[in-house]
Amino acid sequence: MNQTFTVTGMTCGHCEMAVKRALRQIDPEADVAIDRAANRVQVESNRPREELAKAIAEEGYAVAD
Amino acid sequence: MNQTFTVTGMTCGHCEMAVKRALRQIDPEADVAIDRAANRVQVESNRPREELAKAIAEEGYAVAD
Repeated sequence: MNQTFTVTGMTCGHCEMAVKRALRQIDPEADVAIDRAANRVQVESNRPREELAKAIAEEGYAVAD
Repeated sequence: MNQTFTVTGMTCGHCEMAVKRALRQIDPEADVAIDRAANRVQVESNRPREELAKAIAEEGYAVAD
């Protein structure tokens, strides 16, 4: 299931890596694509949306939806 | 010896950590203080200045002086 999040605060490649790593801790099979300029994080995962959003937020980034 | 560098491109805490780690690989005893807002990296180390600057640059950040 493709899930898209609007995430602000990712300023550099390390931030992208931190978000990817956090999502893959939730779901090691997740396919994660990040468009930092667009504040967009796309996750191919069947885990609940709230759980994925929480993982991103706990990394220190604001999840808008 | 206290050595100060002007470093641009550090946008977040991960960037600071990357710079600190790179400097401590050169000199494990180095005392590193970073003021990201001021683009300032202060290193207490007796290693040659060029060597420290190179470590920062290789991490992907521009060293101005």
